[in-house]
Amino acid sequence: MTAVDRISLALPDRSYDILVGPGLIAAAGGYVAPLIRRAPAVIVTDRTVAQYHLEPLRRSFTAAGIANEVIELDPGESTKEFGEFEKLVNRILDYAPERGSTLVALGGGVVGDITGFAASVILRGIDFIQIPTTLLSQVDSSVGGKTGINTRHGKNLIGSFYQPRLVLADTAALDTLPRRELLAGYAEVVKYGLLGDRDFFAWLETNGRRVLDGDQDARRHAVVTSCEAKAAIVAGDERETGQRALLNLGHTFGHALEAETGFGSRLLHGEAIAIGMIMAFDLSVRLGLCPAEDAARVRRHFSAIGLPTSLDAVAGQRWSANALIAHMQQDKKVKDGRITFILVRGIGDAFIAEDIAPADVEALLESAIAA
Amino acid sequence: MTAVDRISLALPDRSYDILVGPGLIAAAGGYVAPLIRRAPAVIVTDRTVAQYHLEPLRRSFTAAGIANEVIELDPGESTKEFGEFEKLVNRILDYAPERGSTLVALGGGVVGDITGFAASVILRGIDFIQIPTTLLSQVDSSVGGKTGINTRHGKNLIGSFYQPRLVLADTAALDTLPRRELLAGYAEVVKYGLLGDRDFFAWLETNGRRVLDGDQDARRHAVVTSCEAKAAIVAGDERETGQRALLNLGHTFGHALEAETGFGSRLLHGEAIAIGMIMAFDLSVRLGLCPAEDAARVRRHFSAIGLPTSLDAVAGQRWSANALIAHMQQDKKVKDGRITFILVRGIGDAFIAEDIAPADVEALLESAIAA
Repeated sequence: MTAVDRISLALPDRSYDILVGPGLIAAAGGYVAPLIRRAPAVIVTDRTVAQYHLEPLRRSFTAAGIANEVIELDPGESTKEFGEFEKLVNRILDYAPERGSTLVALGGGVVGDITGFAASVILRGIDFIQIPTTLLSQVDSSVGGKTGINTRHGKNLIGSFYQPRLVLADTAALDTLPRRELLAGYAEVVKYGLLGDRDFFAWLETNGRRVLDGDQDARRHAVVTSCEAKAAIVAGDERETGQRALLNLGHTFGHALEAETGFGSRLLHGEAIAIGMIMAFDLSVRLGLCPAEDAARVRRHFSAIGLPTSLDAVAGQRWSANALIAHMQQDKKVKDGRITFILVRGIGDAFIAEDIAPADVEALLESAIAA
Repeated sequence: MTAVDRISLALPDRSYDILVGPGLIAAAGGYVAPLIRRAPAVIVTDRTVAQYHLEPLRRSFTAAGIANEVIELDPGESTKEFGEFEKLVNRILDYAPERGSTLVALGGGVVGDITGFAASVILRGIDFIQIPTTLLSQVDSSVGGKTGINTRHGKNLIGSFYQPRLVLADTAALDTLPRRELLAGYAEVVKYGLLGDRDFFAWLETNGRRVLDGDQDARRHAVVTSCEAKAAIVAGDERETGQRALLNLGHTFGHALEAETGFGSRLLHGEAIAIGMIMAFDLSVRLGLCPAEDAARVRRHFSAIGLPTSLDAVAGQRWSANALIAHMQQDKKVKDGRITFILVRGIGDAFIAEDIAPADVEALLESAIAA
């Protein structure tokens, strides 16, 4: 295999590496073996991912002498419900894990979130390795230690901050992704440009299509740059008491859109975040904080690449500003009833805004709904 | 009210105080108010405890300007089941908590364990205050940040290390406890003498009856000494990678006894731990590590005070050494399949033993069953 990029996430009590490159799944055993303190490693995956990646991973584990067991989950967000979490935990406990045991999450965000949460609470914490197979999970959810499950009140309202021991992002795994999922993940890639790296955004304007079309070097550069950006922010603020909130650019709006559309395939997370980032730019322009040209430039790039830019991307959905605001009030980042927004002074310059008048948010939503 | 003893538990990222004294529930508002960042505080309690202590607590909160809501649980260990935990979490989420919100656990170990676990995972962590009302929870479970719930595989197999912001141990609350529960809690008090403080054990030989009979000064000294001992050990080893395991004196045996008797009222946790400590002394004597006279002295004190010292304390139970050993294999402290025992060189001198031959444990259990 080709060389691998290594990004270190430095935390006071627990640091780990994020490795990025093509072919990492088939080579995983060599990287994982030194971290296994107690057999068997339990691989958690979903049926869709298993089809493509489970056998290469197991072959590699076995070749490296890592005894392993597999738990296959149903694909999809409903796997993150409380009842499914209980089932997963019981299936893991069937293997009589000890504190030195390791869970391996092989899959996208759903598998990573629920497996990470399980690892954080079984015996009050066992080891955990992330092998993200989607673009979204490679550049976002697998890095930084946020785990979670859903309740009837909302998404990820139950969870923990719990860091993996290692992240292996196999960029060749992205070849098996449907185009729509790739694009949804790309929304989180472009986010790093929009929130803090104007040059990276410019690079994506030129090279974004190569990332989506399967150019390995472009993919790798996009994933590495994204993971570096995220690692730097998380290292400075693991528990999101400050700057980590910048990573939520587009997410306050986006989560409300997802909640209204039922967190399903009608609007994928990345698509919701794309529209949410457009809204964050529009709100910033409306408040006189950001040049209109920057918002227009973001819209042009999203349109060119195929990301949604407006609410009419969800066919047949009737939107209500009040309903969206009600969802935002449920956000984990609400403080004293006030919703926190990530706004921008321009491309590459996001900041945390806690003092936005509700009337401005409502006006923005009304105009987005009318558009 | 009289003066209050203050014990500080110093941890790298989060320190907190344990206050001990009579009347703390009725005076709680003044201590709690400075810690409340977001209203309402949600008090979690059980119906039995609520009868005695809920109104004084709410009056004190209200007088201190702390808006509060109450969730009453069913008393008993079944409240720590997964399904009950989901219900509790959803009831808390009904109050739309934010990260600055506070849960207050008013009750014994069950209420403290499940409420602490809920606090640790709701929004990935909200604030949490312990007001333990049983002797067991005042000297053990409320201090040190272990939280947990039960699964069909065992007790506390799911949980977290999550520290409260404050612990208020109202020693006058112990007046409402049934004698049997007081005695069960006393087993954890005497544990601190047995594991590391021979003088405290000697003090208990003289004053134990006063602790049980309601002498406020004796109770306070017992609770303060126990909390100081626990705080010192936890401060040195929050996540139990070393010396914290000493706190498990009697627990490896004790948990197995509880598992066999169904974790119910046939054998209370403290009673199981009492028998377990006797077994730990007996095993230490059998291995030539501890003078027989020390084991005999422990047995004399337990008998004098009314704690069980042998398996026949559970009427009608048929014991099996193999079944007990199978339960021990499920313990969270198992490492590479070997069971860790806390053994003693004498009263006040416990140590961690990881290399005990299974045959010795089996022989000890056989002789305890035959006795």
